Amino acid sequence: NLDISMLVSSGRRVLSVTRARLLSTVAVASMEDGSLRAHVSRRGREAPALLPRYLSDARGVETFDAVSRPDGVLQLSVAENQMISDWLVPRIRSIAASPASDAHGGGAGLFEQADIFYQQTHGTPQCRAAVAAHMERVLCGGSYPIDPDKLVVGAGCNAVLENLLFALADAGEGVLVPRPYYAAFEFDLRARAALEVLPVAIRRGGFEASGYYPTADALEAAYASALSRGIAPRVLLLSSPNNPLGFCYPEEVLAECWDWAESKENLHVISDEIYAGSVYRTPADGQPPWTSLATVAARRGRQLGPSAHLVWALSKDFALSGLRVGALYTENEAIRTPLQKLNDLCQVGSPTQAIVSRLLTDQLDAATPRKLWCAAMEEANAARLRSRYDRLTAVLDQGGLRYLDAGAGLFLWIDLRPFLSYGDSGPPQRENSGSWAGAVGVEEALLPAREAEAERALYLRLIHEFGLLLTPGASMRSEEPGLFRCVFSAATEEGFEVALQRFARLAAAPRAT
Amino acid sequence: NLDISMLVSSGRRVLSVTRARLLSTVAVASMEDGSLRAHVSRRGREAPALLPRYLSDARGVETFDAVSRPDGVLQLSVAENQMISDWLVPRIRSIAASPASDAHGGGAGLFEQADIFYQQTHGTPQCRAAVAAHMERVLCGGSYPIDPDKLVVGAGCNAVLENLLFALADAGEGVLVPRPYYAAFEFDLRARAALEVLPVAIRRGGFEASGYYPTADALEAAYASALSRGIAPRVLLLSSPNNPLGFCYPEEVLAECWDWAESKENLHVISDEIYAGSVYRTPADGQPPWTSLATVAARRGRQLGPSAHLVWALSKDFALSGLRVGALYTENEAIRTPLQKLNDLCQVGSPTQAIVSRLLTDQLDAATPRKLWCAAMEEANAARLRSRYDRLTAVLDQGGLRYLDAGAGLFLWIDLRPFLSYGDSGPPQRENSGSWAGAVGVEEALLPAREAEAERALYLRLIHEFGLLLTPGASMRSEEPGLFRCVFSAATEEGFEVALQRFARLAAAPRAT
Repeated sequence: NLDISMLVSSGRRVLSVTRARLLSTVAVASMEDGSLRAHVSRRGREAPALLPRYLSDARGVETFDAVSRPDGVLQLSVAENQMISDWLVPRIRSIAASPASDAHGGGAGLFEQADIFYQQTHGTPQCRAAVAAHMERVLCGGSYPIDPDKLVVGAGCNAVLENLLFALADAGEGVLVPRPYYAAFEFDLRARAALEVLPVAIRRGGFEASGYYPTADALEAAYASALSRGIAPRVLLLSSPNNPLGFCYPEEVLAECWDWAESKENLHVISDEIYAGSVYRTPADGQPPWTSLATVAARRGRQLGPSAHLVWALSKDFALSGLRVGALYTENEAIRTPLQKLNDLCQVGSPTQAIVSRLLTDQLDAATPRKLWCAAMEEANAARLRSRYDRLTAVLDQGGLRYLDAGAGLFLWIDLRPFLSYGDSGPPQRENSGSWAGAVGVEEALLPAREAEAERALYLRLIHEFGLLLTPGASMRSEEPGLFRCVFSAATEEGFEVALQRFARLAAAPRAT
Repeated sequence: NLDISMLVSSGRRVLSVTRARLLSTVAVASMEDGSLRAHVSRRGREAPALLPRYLSDARGVETFDAVSRPDGVLQLSVAENQMISDWLVPRIRSIAASPASDAHGGGAGLFEQADIFYQQTHGTPQCRAAVAAHMERVLCGGSYPIDPDKLVVGAGCNAVLENLLFALADAGEGVLVPRPYYAAFEFDLRARAALEVLPVAIRRGGFEASGYYPTADALEAAYASALSRGIAPRVLLLSSPNNPLGFCYPEEVLAECWDWAESKENLHVISDEIYAGSVYRTPADGQPPWTSLATVAARRGRQLGPSAHLVWALSKDFALSGLRVGALYTENEAIRTPLQKLNDLCQVGSPTQAIVSRLLTDQLDAATPRKLWCAAMEEANAARLRSRYDRLTAVLDQGGLRYLDAGAGLFLWIDLRPFLSYGDSGPPQRENSGSWAGAVGVEEALLPAREAEAERALYLRLIHEFGLLLTPGASMRSEEPGLFRCVFSAATEEGFEVALQRFARLAAAPRAT
């Protein structure tokens, strides 16, 4: 018997996300209730189980509110950016209130006469043009042309990604994804598209970014493993800037992955670049420069071609997850029409498209003082992200806690392995310890039971003893237990200050080992 | 080599719809092009072929424009209502420009602070409450409670219907749909959900509405046929007010279908009531009263229960197809969470939800003179639909053309069989002529080749000789050739006047037989 309202204190947003996830548990219970015997499809029954389960562990948790619940838990596991609403809300309000520009005139409001009727299923020409221009600038600094006619705008990055996968792979075929990865890929790829997620074991060497770079060898091992299990890998799904690791893949890493994929027959590459506009540290800070797969193509003087595709969205760089606007870019003519038609099932409403068109095209309008609004917002956002990164890492440094050097996105990947407790028997022995090649494949995607239990215990301890709700690595298919993702943008400034104090207290706590 | 621009003259709307459909042909050509050898999934390749193909026959057609192309073809095959934008556009503009109501204040525009972040995946509480109240009034006159917590709001009726089907049936299972039916069901049910459409042969008796009422016997025959072919029927999909027939099913027809479905194990009923607010003739005109499946439940003092579900949308009654807002209502607790999560892949953006919330809740606001805005708009809409129905049927009556007596929706189902030409050999002999039982099943869903050819020839003749682009019955799985759907709301007033003249000329033309 869940008391969902108890879980939620810091506003509707947290309610919405958390509630939807927690309700999974209710449904599973209901399905076992004999009073509801109406047929439910297998895929319907299984869908909720594809969601990360760690949030249901947080049920009953009271979340932080500076006024009403200062001792509440800080929700740092939802990938949202709460730091730029002062830029976005007034801007969007002003757009919504500005007069329509169509010939009919007569009345304020952004809504045009033609907006009420069916639009092109892959997005209005205005919206696609605006998104294309923006992607061209942010993804690849103008070095690679993004043609609006090769774009499909749909109801979120998950929606366009799912559609792209429908067109590239049939049910039961596989998608290679380097570990660790965005937990919801499991849902997005499997729930309706019925694809097999093929987690690629990557880790080698010490705890540093380069130890997480996918290599041709690692991909080859996962590819061969899938084939040996009768699964045809069709897609390699890359995420850069990486979620959850918080860094950009260097150009040579992208190039190695792409070259490897091209060496295979019928293997596509999808580059998920949803955090491309959230890069806050640069080569001057020792970070690899942000490089889109489109930039790799441009430097090679080639096209992305029919088997390399990009996805992006407004949810992260603009913190507009509520608008549900994603875009996919493909030069594959054979799938463009299927994609346009499939997108009929996840279109963006015309008012939202109108807002996005105006939000993104202002940057092109040389005649107004708002000319560089998007770029100015990005600069401010980067400065704020960097400030939080610096403050959080300073606390961790001081307390001797390790984390992955990061520079893009909203995340810090924190090493809390010293806090893992295995009781008297000590940590479990791993076969192939230190060798990534032995841990390839779906079967090994989950941690060994004792490791998973130790991580979950730590996850719960972080919540209940330290008031920190982080994303546990196991939910993101981390290869080792005890690594946690912290979304350092997912708190108000007051909340973040409290988070820093709590991290300091954690750092001061005794290690298990 | 399609010249799509030639096809389109009367505005962006026609372009969008027609273009997306016509591009199918391009894609099929591209896929055969050896220069694009990248792997495409089977489902990706097949998706465009699920679209009604009649529109590609219209390629190169120049459409009517009162000023620039008065001789152009009248596009009367897209199910849109062009008669109420004078109500909707100013209203939505005013909503978009009205101040946000949240505590932060500061700035005009409908956009609230919390709108930028993730919302509940099944719709904001405000939007679901507004849609539920509206559905309660329009679907069942308040006789049956529509609980907002049992509603899922998604990106169009097609999106919520697809999601519901994912939860109710697995790939390869079947959905029974009485013939003729909305052509795009083929796409919505098959493209991604991979369901089998099981067309149910219904026709018996003369050319009158009752000859199209589904019966338990007809459903039983289709059900048995599917089972004999190894397909498990999981859903009966009903459409009332019916598209394309333009009438409401009488209560006893709905009851018979529902009772029959409940006699089967594991068979759900989905009642698609998307035209519920577009009823323009009543029992006083000899029409059956509008009856929702919810009304049937209310009269029986029962609930819809876990195996009867409703879908509705703003696309038709409000002519807001561009907003992409649909809703499903279900009391089945076991699928509610799967549906909420699956809906994550086809959510409505928060600005659009905000507009819909305000558009639909004004009717509840007793303090404003706009109290009855929705009801007043519906009355005006019904009067205009009725006027067009009366004027069109008067022309057909005068010319001796038959049509199905209609009273709801945007359609007239016109009998143009006298114009079918079979050449010297005369019409083909049909086995089981006059017996619906013989024509059940997917294999027989298409018309025999000579009948289909004769209908297509007539379809093209209507376009090129009479300037009328109607929906050919074969695309809607009509059991007989020569029946056409005319969307009498899909034209401006000027266009409609021209359409009447053209129908009069058609009526005066010599019959083939």
